Amino acid sequence: MGRASFAYDFPHRNLLSAGSLNPLDVQMLFERAGEHFERNREPNKKLDALKGLTQINLFFEPSTRTLASFELAGKRLGADVVNFSAGNASTKKGESLADTAETLAAMNPDLLVVRHQSAGAAAFFADVTGISTINAGDGAHEHPSQALLDVFTLSRHWGEIGGRRIAIVGDIAHSRVARSNVSLMNLLNAEVRLCGPATLLPPDADRWGATVFHDLDAALEDCDAVMTLRLQRERMSGGLIPSEREYAALYGLTHKRLEAAKPDCLVMHPGPMNRGVEIHPALADDPDRSVILEQVESGVAIRMAILEMVASRAPNMRYEDDR
Amino acid sequence: MGRASFAYDFPHRNLLSAGSLNPLDVQMLFERAGEHFERNREPNKKLDALKGLTQINLFFEPSTRTLASFELAGKRLGADVVNFSAGNASTKKGESLADTAETLAAMNPDLLVVRHQSAGAAAFFADVTGISTINAGDGAHEHPSQALLDVFTLSRHWGEIGGRRIAIVGDIAHSRVARSNVSLMNLLNAEVRLCGPATLLPPDADRWGATVFHDLDAALEDCDAVMTLRLQRERMSGGLIPSEREYAALYGLTHKRLEAAKPDCLVMHPGPMNRGVEIHPALADDPDRSVILEQVESGVAIRMAILEMVASRAPNMRYEDDR
Amino acid sequence: MGRASFAYDFPHRNLLSAGSLNPLDVQMLFERAGEHFERNREPNKKLDALKGLTQINLFFEPSTRTLASFELAGKRLGADVVNFSAGNASTKKGESLADTAETLAAMNPDLLVVRHQSAGAAAFFADVTGISTINAGDGAHEHPSQALLDVFTLSRHWGEIGGRRIAIVGDIAHSRVARSNVSLMNLLNAEVRLCGPATLLPPDADRWGATVFHDLDAALEDCDAVMTLRLQRERMSGGLIPSEREYAALYGLTHKRLEAAKPDCLVMHPGPMNRGVEIHPALADDPDRSVILEQVESGVAIRMAILEMVASRAPNMRYEDDR
Repeated sequence: MGRASFAYDFPHRNLLSAGSLNPLDVQMLFERAGEHFERNREPNKKLDALKGLTQINLFFEPSTRTLASFELAGKRLGADVVNFSAGNASTKKGESLADTAETLAAMNPDLLVVRHQSAGAAAFFADVTGISTINAGDGAHEHPSQALLDVFTLSRHWGEIGGRRIAIVGDIAHSRVARSNVSLMNLLNAEVRLCGPATLLPPDADRWGATVFHDLDAALEDCDAVMTLRLQRERMSGGLIPSEREYAALYGLTHKRLEAAKPDCLVMHPGPMNRGVEIHPALADDPDRSVILEQVESGVAIRMAILEMVASRAPNMRYEDDR
Repeated sequence: MGRASFAYDFPHRNLLSAGSLNPLDVQMLFERAGEHFERNREPNKKLDALKGLTQINLFFEPSTRTLASFELAGKRLGADVVNFSAGNASTKKGESLADTAETLAAMNPDLLVVRHQSAGAAAFFADVTGISTINAGDGAHEHPSQALLDVFTLSRHWGEIGGRRIAIVGDIAHSRVARSNVSLMNLLNAEVRLCGPATLLPPDADRWGATVFHDLDAALEDCDAVMTLRLQRERMSGGLIPSEREYAALYGLTHKRLEAAKPDCLVMHPGPMNRGVEIHPALADDPDRSVILEQVESGVAIRMAILEMVASRAPNMRYEDDR
Repeated sequence: MGRASFAYDFPHRNLLSAGSLNPLDVQMLFERAGEHFERNREPNKKLDALKGLTQINLFFEPSTRTLASFELAGKRLGADVVNFSAGNASTKKGESLADTAETLAAMNPDLLVVRHQSAGAAAFFADVTGISTINAGDGAHEHPSQALLDVFTLSRHWGEIGGRRIAIVGDIAHSRVARSNVSLMNLLNAEVRLCGPATLLPPDADRWGATVFHDLDAALEDCDAVMTLRLQRERMSGGLIPSEREYAALYGLTHKRLEAAKPDCLVMHPGPMNRGVEIHPALADDPDRSVILEQVESGVAIRMAILEMVASRAPNMRYEDDR
């Protein structure tokens, strides 16, 4: 299978934010991801769509599932994949972020997957290097591949997500997942609700294009899906951190609380879960409600589609037609 | 080379304990490992027997040789191999072991290789995920691929191991290597002796199917092989830990001590060695006695055979005949 | 592309020091690296020159760029590449360096890439294992692939480097980069100057085959290239460590200081850079002067050539002609 075989001319050479996509981009990504989703369940998962290309995963923050997901995606597409983990030697030796970026770029990767604790880091890498860059999470800012996998999961159940009502509950302020999901869901004309205590909502939440709630029962009313987020204690500071017990009582998802939503309301969580805090174990494991593991499975498929689509626009691809 | 080419229908989709195998399984694994052993000495070691499959090595304990051995085995068979090391991010964030297992399984690996500090962890992963799982060491419980490589090494020298007398010396209580070897050697009708100070023998040693000795000279009498184990100080607690000097005097293997055994008695060690403690350097390096490096070489070959055989029974293989 | 296709019969099965090469070896490495340099800029960077071979990168010291460079080089050549990082489990468990070496060798790698904090470690691995070994830095001793990439970079600009004048500035005493470069540049008949404070020059600097300077302006006079080195504070001890401000004033490279050199003098740095200490940011980023990123790019290309050439002499290659 060649790299130039997409009928659709994907217009982006980076994926930095969910809001940069247009609805047709999303549709094309989902179509391709759907093919990967099926193939990933078969014994032979291997394509050579990215054969000959080099993918560098540059993770300045620890990660299990996102790194694994991108690594598997790249390998299943035949790329040569190299991982750099957080706290690597050169940055410890005092190298600037720009120099790290330019040094990696000089090794001629075709794709950079970047996770960093600072908002804007992936865009910075894309600007400095000119290499096709995928934002795998930059501080509390954006995590577009997560939003795409979340909405892809919903679209597998619903077809269209336009007109659906989706609540995002919990620690919105520290969540790049929430931010990217709101952008993407707005783009596709879903109605988004944000719900959490005032201390865990961002100051500008009313300008996100979502309705803000502090009461969970009100937020869940007639929802088609609810996504609850992990309490990111490692990102919090100051005295206003709720105890786990308080939080679970007010915002923990349970079957009981879910009665306010539509009868077939889907339950999502980007993981890793704190069972008994933001979600009751019985709900997390309910096959009629929870699509949490399907989100993970969708993740590899959507990242394969992202890598392929972005690579089809990469500058290094310019000679493709000559071969 | 296709995946379905084995004449033998390997009946296990996991390898969790050495005792779960039957003698014909072992014979078939050894035959295939013998082919890999030879090929691994040639320049072209690469097969595509597992091409298209994904192997995840999930190591919650640090490891050099076992991880490397499984990684090389998978890569030489053409699998896409992804490593997760101990202390990965999600478990640090409070994720339960079951959630880690299910998350990895949702990425559709075909093979899981699991090392964990707790007995039963690999079986737990196999149960939770339904993915073909190979136990690469679970606490002080089992390490079946190590037992297979040990006995494979002996079988390369002897042909049959039935009727042979083998002593396992040292820190039996903390040794999953000893436990798996006793099972496997019993299965193949070898006579097994366990030898060590009472504090380093398990309380139930008399029910292992081996004769228990505290005196090394008595244990070694007429042995065909002796395997000495590493003093695992990191697993010991309490006040009854022997000093290295005491231990070496009583249980350290030397040429002199070995005079009690058969003249061509083979010497084994699963590594890493504490030279001068459990084994004298001159004996470890004696090419007429020591098969310690051959054990390592056998390890890659036997793991290749295990991965192939287990994969031939993996649930994802169900479509194989249609292709 | 086959492995035996080189017209040139590379005479070394290891690369332990730059001084072990002869000028024809270097010329052949540079010719092959030149081909890789061009191909690495194209989308399809993949060859199968090392397909079927196993490359183990054994790094006892942390590294970003060198490890990545060797990993990419091996993968782009089709080798199965396995990394071992510093502080691996077996050495922590008290295993001797020789046993670690022999254990790895028993896994039948075809190529070992070794970085270690002690001079002579790579040669030790080569001796103990008999496996083709590439020294990726041993203490303050040698780093031959770095010297080759540095001189390859210069040769791309100049053609010949014989007769050129090159200054190496800074922390010479702790620099394996300097030591290997002086050997290689001497071999190719360049004139080498070493410049730094007495405390950062090795006691035997006058026997290196280079002229020693303490004054930067004098050292730079009529130079064709200048290489400045990182202040390796982590390798220094005692009270005679210059402050960064002192060092920058005396030995920091700037456009102004460079006026003493030839008008087209090239500026090199092996990275990672301390901007504002050993080199002014404006100079590091000057496209007319700085070849610092080109050094990184050359690194992957030259390492591909090294791996191929060394592999063509590896003992495991002995059956090559029969196939």
